[in-house]
Amino acid sequence: MKTQDHALLPAVILAELEAAVGRDGLLVERSQLQTYECDGLTAIRTLPSAVVLPRSTAQVQAVVQTCARHKIAFVARGAGTGLSGGALPAEGGIVISFARMTEILNVDLVNQRMTVQPGVINNHLTARVAPHGYFYAPDPSSQSVCTIGGNVAENAGGAHCLKYGFTTTHVLGLEVVLPTGEKVHLGAPTLDAPGYDLLGVFVGSEGTLGVATEITLRIVKKPETVQVLLAAFDSIACAGQTVSDIIAAAILPAAMEIMDRLSIQSAEAAVHPNYPVCEALLLIELDGPAAEVALQMDQVRQLCRDNGAWEDRLAHTERERMLVWKGRKAAFAAAGRLAPNYIVQDGVIPRTRLPEVLDRIAQMSQEVGLQVTNVFHAGDGNLHPIVLYDASIPGQEQIAVNLSLGILRVCVDLGGSITGEHGVGREKQESMGYMYAEPDLSTMHRVRHAFDPENISNPDKLFPRPRLCGEKTGPYTPHPLETAGIAEYF
Amino acid sequence: MKTQDHALLPAVILAELEAAVGRDGLLVERSQLQTYECDGLTAIRTLPSAVVLPRSTAQVQAVVQTCARHKIAFVARGAGTGLSGGALPAEGGIVISFARMTEILNVDLVNQRMTVQPGVINNHLTARVAPHGYFYAPDPSSQSVCTIGGNVAENAGGAHCLKYGFTTTHVLGLEVVLPTGEKVHLGAPTLDAPGYDLLGVFVGSEGTLGVATEITLRIVKKPETVQVLLAAFDSIACAGQTVSDIIAAAILPAAMEIMDRLSIQSAEAAVHPNYPVCEALLLIELDGPAAEVALQMDQVRQLCRDNGAWEDRLAHTERERMLVWKGRKAAFAAAGRLAPNYIVQDGVIPRTRLPEVLDRIAQMSQEVGLQVTNVFHAGDGNLHPIVLYDASIPGQEQIAVNLSLGILRVCVDLGGSITGEHGVGREKQESMGYMYAEPDLSTMHRVRHAFDPENISNPDKLFPRPRLCGEKTGPYTPHPLETAGIAEYF
Repeated sequence: MKTQDHALLPAVILAELEAAVGRDGLLVERSQLQTYECDGLTAIRTLPSAVVLPRSTAQVQAVVQTCARHKIAFVARGAGTGLSGGALPAEGGIVISFARMTEILNVDLVNQRMTVQPGVINNHLTARVAPHGYFYAPDPSSQSVCTIGGNVAENAGGAHCLKYGFTTTHVLGLEVVLPTGEKVHLGAPTLDAPGYDLLGVFVGSEGTLGVATEITLRIVKKPETVQVLLAAFDSIACAGQTVSDIIAAAILPAAMEIMDRLSIQSAEAAVHPNYPVCEALLLIELDGPAAEVALQMDQVRQLCRDNGAWEDRLAHTERERMLVWKGRKAAFAAAGRLAPNYIVQDGVIPRTRLPEVLDRIAQMSQEVGLQVTNVFHAGDGNLHPIVLYDASIPGQEQIAVNLSLGILRVCVDLGGSITGEHGVGREKQESMGYMYAEPDLSTMHRVRHAFDPENISNPDKLFPRPRLCGEKTGPYTPHPLETAGIAEYF
Repeated sequence: MKTQDHALLPAVILAELEAAVGRDGLLVERSQLQTYECDGLTAIRTLPSAVVLPRSTAQVQAVVQTCARHKIAFVARGAGTGLSGGALPAEGGIVISFARMTEILNVDLVNQRMTVQPGVINNHLTARVAPHGYFYAPDPSSQSVCTIGGNVAENAGGAHCLKYGFTTTHVLGLEVVLPTGEKVHLGAPTLDAPGYDLLGVFVGSEGTLGVATEITLRIVKKPETVQVLLAAFDSIACAGQTVSDIIAAAILPAAMEIMDRLSIQSAEAAVHPNYPVCEALLLIELDGPAAEVALQMDQVRQLCRDNGAWEDRLAHTERERMLVWKGRKAAFAAAGRLAPNYIVQDGVIPRTRLPEVLDRIAQMSQEVGLQVTNVFHAGDGNLHPIVLYDASIPGQEQIAVNLSLGILRVCVDLGGSITGEHGVGREKQESMGYMYAEPDLSTMHRVRHAFDPENISNPDKLFPRPRLCGEKTGPYTPHPLETAGIAEYF
């Protein structure tokens, strides 16, 4: 836990910001700013020098133009639920909060799209179009609070992205204020727009290329039928093999999730989803026309039994189905019942390497004497190992951080990646150097520079230090995690 | 038709190129170079100063390093089937032909991907994996000759992209030689790779960001059943309404194509697909599990009848189905039976604006006295109006070009785009200024500059002249189409 000293901006800049967003849109009191000193990565905190709460694109543009003129760093913030420190302010920088830009601007059912402001909460989208038979597909576990602006910045995923794709699949167009203060439109109303796909670059760029101020999203027709199956296995390897067999049978479930014994227990204690108690629980959701779902569910149940499932239970009502998902989505928070503290990690491996990576995690866990519980988006090969620890025991937090980053290293070594959906942010910036070669990173950096020549848009995130090229370096301040010895891992 | 004078490169550069690719890999004779003076956009021709035929990434890298050192423009070329002049050489520039890089390097069935060199022909991919039950989905009409490298450069589409997505959906990773001569890897073996999605920027960048030398592609499990329906309507509006109704019923066909009376007649004459003679033929292909296809096909037939289809005929054998597609894919070439010359245009509109755009096309067609026949990827709103003319009548070619570009302007005015799948290239570079605002284009240009600071990678394509920023301008040479009065349209 580290809190910087509070450095107010010069009066001339504050005056410009106030002119941009009005007196009630500018926060400068320490007590007000503290809300914004971290996001879901609570281990690192920096007090912003100010927070602005714009009400329109024009106000955002005025704020960013002020920042560009005075070379002040800014970071956009939605609900602050990110887990990698993406919304952490820069030292001396400001926060642009989207708490007042929460309008659904347009719903176009015929063309299956809606246009919203960045502060709209993820599941408000579905709430708005559900009466007409549509839904918004990406469903991060935090969907009841997280905002679309943050989802775009992080290319948010979720259990149903196996079938429906990540946020990037669902963003059709963006209005963006560039770090230079220019307003641009990325994407086009039609498919395969000519020119460069800058929409795809922006989605998942973690706030380093500018600020999205309007977001046009694809909405999807609700399937006729949705069914979820719970299958209980004696080992995660058997559950994992079932996942591979289902994909090989050309069945694409809406979701395939695995929870291990510890996760099952904690979810059960937290929200009572009535899961079977077993080593590995496989949740398989199928959706589509009723005839297809019925047919495929038969095949899926057979594949579960072939791989040793000793129970395969369908949720029979919508209420039962929602309870199954409530348990799964509560898995992270429920880890609080297993230990005073925990780190939710996020790595990706090729689906076929699942047993191998689990062996390695078990071995590493044993070596350092900390428990790790595992929840996976199994169809995607996206692991969420949860490292359990007790911060009140001196040194244990650091061991937990080291273990969680070590798991990522294993993922990369097995041909995977350091993040599936949580982003790099501040947390994993050093890991990028382990994942990418220097020319690959340098190319990304040049693109960043093309958008943000002054390096003011969420600086010091995403890329490893020392900086690579074209960017001002400034005095080097060691990373709080680095000083604690993380460098040995990456 | 315009052919530049042949300007040989200085001996020192030729020696470097020969050192890079060997004597038999370097073409400099005028008679050899003439093959490379244009692609499918035959109206513009430029003789390259040399052609190299590398056999490996290392050779490509050596060639590009030579180009970077001496500031020589280069363009990569596969089969030269592009329709927008994407593979047209720059004046004094060289062509990098991938005719000798045609290996399928790796097939990974478990992870449903394959890695290939850029010179591999599109349908060789499916031929290779079909025995194992897989296929490569994007299917441009030229798929029997066009190469994957060109497909990546243009983000190629095809009839089945309605369900399966464009090339960009299927590219998982690229090895790229940047215009600086550096070798980088874009994308990652796993989903949602951290950092910027530069893979998405590169796909469809039309050769302006470098040269792909290895391409990793997704392959798809062959569906259990494929069925194609031919429905005959008395008007294109009714066929178009059927398309909207099918999508609204949450049915996603593998393909939905409309052909008008002229296209039907010419296809019939060319390959005898036995189409019903009507004002508008709707081809609907469904694929998936047999039970699902049967169920959905019943719904589709009902929707066709509800909209006035007086015939709805299923292809009963695989041979019949292939014949249906042979007719559709022959539609462009068959236009040669309707007139001595024709221009295949490529625009996109929101699906719901189809009747409106067809009225406008009919009106414009009448005004200038040239026939236009229409073939659409109707599900995607992607039009291919074919403008028929006779180049031997003085002035008629220019009227045809003006009409074809005028149709694009209508597409943009209705909220659409100037290209669905053929690319911008040289043909439509001026149209980009009609489609995008200056800051949008300028942002793309800065990204281009980040990849290609010397502006040597397929220069003078994609962006309108005059150039926007950060790029050397050089003496202005008027566009062959511009001098002929196209500027009035864009």
